[in-house]
Amino acid sequence: MDFAFYDGNMMPLSDIRIATDDRAFFFGDGVYDAMVGNGKSIFMEKEHLERFRNNLSALSLSLPYSDKEIHDILSVLMEKTGTGYLFLYVQASRAREERKHSSHGIYSAHFFAYAKRFALPDADEMLSLVSVEDMRYELCHIKTLNLLPNTIAATYAEQMGADEAVFVRNGIVRECSHSNISVLKDGTLITHPLDCHVLPGIMRKALIRCATEMGIAVEERCYTKEEVFCSDGVFITSTTRRCALACALDGVALPLPKEDALALHSMVNREFFEKMG
Amino acid sequence: MDFAFYDGNMMPLSDIRIATDDRAFFFGDGVYDAMVGNGKSIFMEKEHLERFRNNLSALSLSLPYSDKEIHDILSVLMEKTGTGYLFLYVQASRAREERKHSSHGIYSAHFFAYAKRFALPDADEMLSLVSVEDMRYELCHIKTLNLLPNTIAATYAEQMGADEAVFVRNGIVRECSHSNISVLKDGTLITHPLDCHVLPGIMRKALIRCATEMGIAVEERCYTKEEVFCSDGVFITSTTRRCALACALDGVALPLPKEDALALHSMVNREFFEKMG
Repeated sequence: MDFAFYDGNMMPLSDIRIATDDRAFFFGDGVYDAMVGNGKSIFMEKEHLERFRNNLSALSLSLPYSDKEIHDILSVLMEKTGTGYLFLYVQASRAREERKHSSHGIYSAHFFAYAKRFALPDADEMLSLVSVEDMRYELCHIKTLNLLPNTIAATYAEQMGADEAVFVRNGIVRECSHSNISVLKDGTLITHPLDCHVLPGIMRKALIRCATEMGIAVEERCYTKEEVFCSDGVFITSTTRRCALACALDGVALPLPKEDALALHSMVNREFFEKMG
Repeated sequence: MDFAFYDGNMMPLSDIRIATDDRAFFFGDGVYDAMVGNGKSIFMEKEHLERFRNNLSALSLSLPYSDKEIHDILSVLMEKTGTGYLFLYVQASRAREERKHSSHGIYSAHFFAYAKRFALPDADEMLSLVSVEDMRYELCHIKTLNLLPNTIAATYAEQMGADEAVFVRNGIVRECSHSNISVLKDGTLITHPLDCHVLPGIMRKALIRCATEMGIAVEERCYTKEEVFCSDGVFITSTTRRCALACALDGVALPLPKEDALALHSMVNREFFEKMG
């Protein structure tokens, strides 16, 4: 059974009940993070919790739990939920009794977390992508609960029989509905710079680190859809998918990944299992 | 006591509890509307419910309640909550047990409504405004639960001692954090056209109708902050505030409203009380 924690109480996820003083409900006024654990370890936990803290402070939210306490809560959730790989979710949302747009001076947050059994996706399965116009706001670097455009894009991808939607604006490839995208070309890994249009993905970070370790140059710069079509390999990275390669964009087959792309892909996914023990 | 309704159950607002299958909580995947009632009438109810239906269909959501049933629910909420003016809120958010970005094929919604006692603001009180850069998404014509940028702007306004924040982009004035803005100049009412950057406000509609009835020309076009500074009157319209005039923008006093601006302002607010009976 999937277990959850909300403001100090641990119970089955399906029993969790939220009051309307949780501004996640009215405004999406909160931040979250998602991790993968297996009872023994949580992959890149330190980096995830660091990002979670950054996001809390971006929204001027304070939480009465230390990283150690969050770790302990997640450990108990894993233990209660089951063995194998688990999806771990943490969320902090502003607490205010009255529904009012302004939250001037209100920093206190509800804390919600849950563990869910899930089948670790096969990172060797190649993904098909569809592009969508990026109409999102300029706060995409913060992992907030304002995710409607992401859900619309992900729904569209599924309707089109694709695995993921890629946000493109004025021809520039930004990121996907719930993952980052990067391309390899002539021995260089190219990925969108960290600005208000992309999330600083933890797996994106792992991809860049592995590339560097392999002696692959890394360029954080804007690139176009055309560069995706003539790349040597397209990487889709996310916490749950780890590192996957893409095989198609908008119904057009992408070039087969070259040897260095395959090697980088293998290294990122191998590292995941090594770290998880 | 403020009363609420959630999926068929009526209870005090403070007793409402939401399960995590309500995607308002994770994604802000829902729409809402807000009205003002007084037990006898709901101001421009037909227009509000029509907009609510448009928003439901924009998100491919379906609701098992007719307009008549929603009206009856609101009537009971008003009766239970109290006499005088009441703030009425309706919200429909997608229902899906599993947290997953895609909602392909999932149209069913939770329905939430509440009534709240509130003091009708004095429409003669002039408002001070602060401008903020509009970094919102291009779905602002839909009244969704992705309101974080609006809450940030409203919070900033309150911090600055102002009454409302005005979203400006590339010098163009769009709308406010939870109201529309329009200006009068040389006998013409100017307001941003209805596109993806502004909400089709019901009070905006009432303002335009009153202007037309008074023989004031109406131009729906983009206008600049400079045009606000040299206008004959600045109108802030919203369901709860009705029609207010602004007296300052970014700490700079605006010109005193001219006679035609004062007459239009009076007419909109008088009409409100006439309709409410």
